[in-house]
This record gives sequence, C-alpha cells and structure tokens, in this order.
Amino acid sequence: MRVIVDAFGGDNAPQAPIAGAVEAVQKGLAEVILVGDEEKIRAVATEMAVSLDGVNIVHAPDVMEMEDEPRRILKDKKTSSMAVGLQLLAAGEGDAFVSAGSTGALIMGATFIVKRIKGISRPALAPLMPSDKGPFMLLDSGANADCRPEMLVQFGVMGSLYMENVLYKGEKPTVGLLNIGTEDTKGGELQQETFKLLKATDLNFIGNVEAREVPNGAAQVIVADGFSGNVLLKTMEGTASMLLGYVKTLFHTNFLTKIAGLIVKPHIAGLKKKMDTSEYGGAPLLGVNKPVIKAHGNANAKAIYNAVRVAAEFAQTGVVERFGEAVAASAIAEA
Amino acid sequence: MRVIVDAFGGDNAPQAPIAGAVEAVQKGLAEVILVGDEEKIRAVATEMAVSLDGVNIVHAPDVMEMEDEPRRILKDKKTSSMAVGLQLLAAGEGDAFVSAGSTGALIMGATFIVKRIKGISRPALAPLMPSDKGPFMLLDSGANADCRPEMLVQFGVMGSLYMENVLYKGEKPTVGLLNIGTEDTKGGELQQETFKLLKATDLNFIGNVEAREVPNGAAQVIVADGFSGNVLLKTMEGTASMLLGYVKTLFHTNFLTKIAGLIVKPHIAGLKKKMDTSEYGGAPLLGVNKPVIKAHGNANAKAIYNAVRVAAEFAQTGVVERFGEAVAASAIAEA
Repeated sequence: MRVIVDAFGGDNAPQAPIAGAVEAVQKGLAEVILVGDEEKIRAVATEMAVSLDGVNIVHAPDVMEMEDEPRRILKDKKTSSMAVGLQLLAAGEGDAFVSAGSTGALIMGATFIVKRIKGISRPALAPLMPSDKGPFMLLDSGANADCRPEMLVQFGVMGSLYMENVLYKGEKPTVGLLNIGTEDTKGGELQQETFKLLKATDLNFIGNVEAREVPNGAAQVIVADGFSGNVLLKTMEGTASMLLGYVKTLFHTNFLTKIAGLIVKPHIAGLKKKMDTSEYGGAPLLGVNKPVIKAHGNANAKAIYNAVRVAAEFAQTGVVERFGEAVAASAIAEA
Repeated sequence: MRVIVDAFGGDNAPQAPIAGAVEAVQKGLAEVILVGDEEKIRAVATEMAVSLDGVNIVHAPDVMEMEDEPRRILKDKKTSSMAVGLQLLAAGEGDAFVSAGSTGALIMGATFIVKRIKGISRPALAPLMPSDKGPFMLLDSGANADCRPEMLVQFGVMGSLYMENVLYKGEKPTVGLLNIGTEDTKGGELQQETFKLLKATDLNFIGNVEAREVPNGAAQVIVADGFSGNVLLKTMEGTASMLLGYVKTLFHTNFLTKIAGLIVKPHIAGLKKKMDTSEYGGAPLLGVNKPVIKAHGNANAKAIYNAVRVAAEFAQTGVVERFGEAVAASAIAEA
C-alpha cells in the first residue's frame, strides 16, 4: 500500500510526520509519499539525523494553516501540502492519505477533491476511542453539526463495515444510537426517526445507548449527530485529563504519597496508555472515495506512525468501495 | 422556609428521604413536610429508630413508580406522593419541593401543577456539577431534547440569576454556550443563532465553550440544548466512574501497590468527594413558579439533606420571582 502523508499538518509538523513516515517505511509497513516543501523536508530530516531512503517526496510549496478558512484549500491554497496530497490520492498516485492538519480543511478538501461516495450524504469523522471493553468507533464526531436521520443511518452502516473489516476481521460489531435514555422512544425528533430506520437495517443494532455507558463499552459503533458526538468525545478527553491531573497532584501531597506514587507509576502509565488514542492512529473520514485519516492535531511521531499503519490496513481491505453499495442496500442512500 | 419532601421518590425511598428530612429538621435547616403513605412513613421511622418530632406529614396513598408514564401524574396518579407534594407547593402550603423520583414525571408534574413562569417557554433541569474551579450549573441537562434558540437564552438568564443569588451571593457568573469550537460562528443552526442572541443580553457571556474545557471550569453557567447537555453530564459521570474503577484495580495489582493504596486511600476519598454531586443537593428545575429540586435517583440520606438545604436557600432568595421579569427584559420571552 502507498500512503500519502501530509508533512506540514499538525502542531508538531514537519518533525512528527517525517519521523512517523520514516519509521513506517523502515518497518516495512507501507510505501510512503511525503508531501510538502521538499527543501524543508530534507533540511529537517538532516537536522533530526533520520534517513529519507525509500521515502518518496512530492513537493508542495504551501501550507494550510490551522486558522485558514477551510474553503481556501479549494482556492488559493491548492498548492498546500494537504491539497496536493488529496490531489495525488484522487489521481490514484497513492492508496490512502494521512494528515494531522486542520480538521475543517481536511473535510472540505476530501469532500471536494477525493469526493463523496455516490449515495452518501456527508462524510463523517470516525475516531476510535477507548472503553472498558476495547476500542469503539464514534461517528460522527464533529464533521456535521446538523444531521438528518438518513445521515445517521449511513454513519452506522459505514462504521459497522469498517469495524467488521478493519478491526474485528469478520465479526459484526454492535451498533448503538447515542441517546438520553434507553427506551425506544427516547430523544428528540432526530433520534426517534433514526431509531426506526436503524431498526430496519441488517446492522447488529442494539438500540439506544446513554452517554454514561459509552466508556463502559456499551457498543462497538456509536452513532451520533456531529454535535453531540463531539460533546461526547471532548467530555471524555476533558474529564480524563482533569482526573489524571488530580491523581498526579495527590501523589505529591507528602513524603509517603510520593513513595506510593513511585510504586504505582508504571501502572499509572498503563492507565494513561489505555486512554491514549494515539495508539489507534487517528480518525478515518468515512464517506469519501478513498481512505483518508485525520491524525490528532498534536500527533507525535508515534501517532503518525500508527495513522500510517491504520491507513494501510484500511486501504488493504478495500472496504471503502463497499460503503456506497451497503448504503444503497439499506435504502437510505441520497438520491 | 417550609420544604416539602417526596418520601416515596428514588431508589432509596422511603428510608433516605425520611432520614434526610429528619436531619434537616434536627439541624434547624428548614421546616419539613414529608409527603407519602403516613402509616408506612411512621413504621419505617420506627424501624430506623429516628424521631419524627417536628416533621409534618401529609398523607398521600399512591406512588409514581420510575417506569410509570410521566403523564400519569396528572391523571390516575394525582394522589401519588409526588403529585400531592406539587399540589401543596402550588397551593402555597410550602416554599419548595424536593423529590428523587422519576425525572420525567417531576418535569411533567411541575410544569402543569406548579406551572411555567409566564414568558418562559420550557423549564430546564439545571444540575450543579464539579469542575476544577468549583461547581458550575449546566442547563438544560435533559428536560428538552429539542430546543429553539430563545429557549437556550432563557436558560442562560435563569442560570445566571440562580448562581448570582443562590451560590455566589452577588457575583455575576460567567455564561458559556456549549459548542464544538470556540470561534463565534461554530456549531449548528441552533448554536449560531443562540450565540447572537446571548451576545445581545447583559449576561456575562464569554462565548462558545468546548466540552473538553467544561471539566476545567470554563464557565460558571453552561448553556446547552437538553440533548447535548445530557450527553455532557452523563459522559462526565461515565468517564469518572470508569477511571476511578481503573485506579481501584491498579492498587490491587500486587503487595506493594496495596501498600501504596493504603497510603493514598484518604486522598482518593477526597477525590471521590470532589466528583460527588450529592454534595450539591440535586438539580433545580428552573422555569416553574416555585423552587423544585430534583435529587438524584440514587440519592442517599445525605443527598436528600443537601437537597433540602439547597431548596431552602433557593426559596429564601426569592429569585424564582425574578426569572420571568429578567427573561422579559432580555426580549426573548415567549409571547
């Protein structure tokens, strides 16, 4: 598989994308095409003392900055590393694309350069997240603030196929609808209508799931509108960060607690790792014609490496080509 | 102040409401009117060896069960403890009402028995929640799954007045709009329109707040539609419970970690207390004509005691009578 990597996306660019890409090549994970200002890439690689042997570089002089209006990727920033990467993907010069750059720009660029899959209304950002029972996929997590019921069903179909093919290799995942109660009639108009539509699909739909049960692994695919999905995602991050901060402070209370801290330190590290989504390699953007992975804005080299791994696995399965068909079969395709 | 307490609401009824009410009377917090089957109340009090001296009892033969359709409180369950308590409140026989019973029934009953304040579209459930910088009020947290922009502004006005008068005694709290980004134009149609309306009020509106920052105490009043507010509330609860569970397991790994656990045990208890919303005494239902407090379904005696305390403080301020006026002044009152 040939994975295109945006060398100038994210807070730690270009160092993290370069290091992650180089490691992926060295470990034989995938062929990698690094996109960005070639001179800078080579200079930074030299500074970091990493070898670019076996790494393809495609020059792109410009950068989509975090604060740039997303639509600029289609206009005056067509030569940015993100735009050029997406153009290469659309042209078949690579099999998947990874970027840690602006989420809005990536969604805009992927939607109009790689293009939506026929029949799918809107692509969804679909991160894998930690739970007590292993990772689950949450979609949408913020690409679409306002959703219609058929969009949510499409998210469920794509998320289910992804998990079945990329993560669980053949096992049909459980699908739950994020709601404010578990009874069938709970929620607003959107959830009530979506519930009926999901019920009529051949998904392994287990019904409504309350946010309280999501960290316990209530379902392997959680379907939500992008607004409440984003609230779920960020509340988990914020609460975990607040609590881990408290725990850290707690061990600094006095001499004895410091000793206790030394004893449990390796275990706390394990706990942090459990909550660390960089292991999962970022969020696939499901609903466009080719695999596109959004790595976290603060992705380090390891996170980029994992994103390349996930991108290659995603592309390898060819599942992206089955999304449109599956959505059409559910009779919820956009006309 | 005279606080009416539903003796038969919640998982731990009637023991917890009786014990909480008795403690409130003994500590001189408020006069208490316990509502429910009088014979059972007296029998349980005897069993628990608590004295009902100074506690008023109003007999109500029936109970609103958790699984009862909420509208039954207005129909065949008019003689339930919850219905009778609300009738007493509406008739001026008490100054505030506390129940740990069904949320849906309490909202339905309060809305149609105590009645909405003139000009306010819908009452909101407004729990106080823990953050790094002290408690904040979240409204709505689930009473209204589908909201219109003017409803959210009304929530902001009521939440601000409540915090200013009941909790901070004169300090105008910061008000934030729950959103999926901090820029002024973020979110769906609901948030974009609400942002403009909030901006035009005289609230201390600090703009959009991301869910990630809420546990850090981003604002003292968080305004949200009931669906995403509920997702925020329950994700905080679920994530905290998952992490505290991990931490507990971690200390049981081996002999040394058990020692470490003994050392930090009192500090972990402090951490749990920090996250324990029973300290805050339940969620006011803002937007009806009299103070109504929803205690958590699993409220213990301490939580009921705190709910009685909060109910008395809420009633004492008389702030409930200023909600309608304040909303009218914001020009977002319902016609």
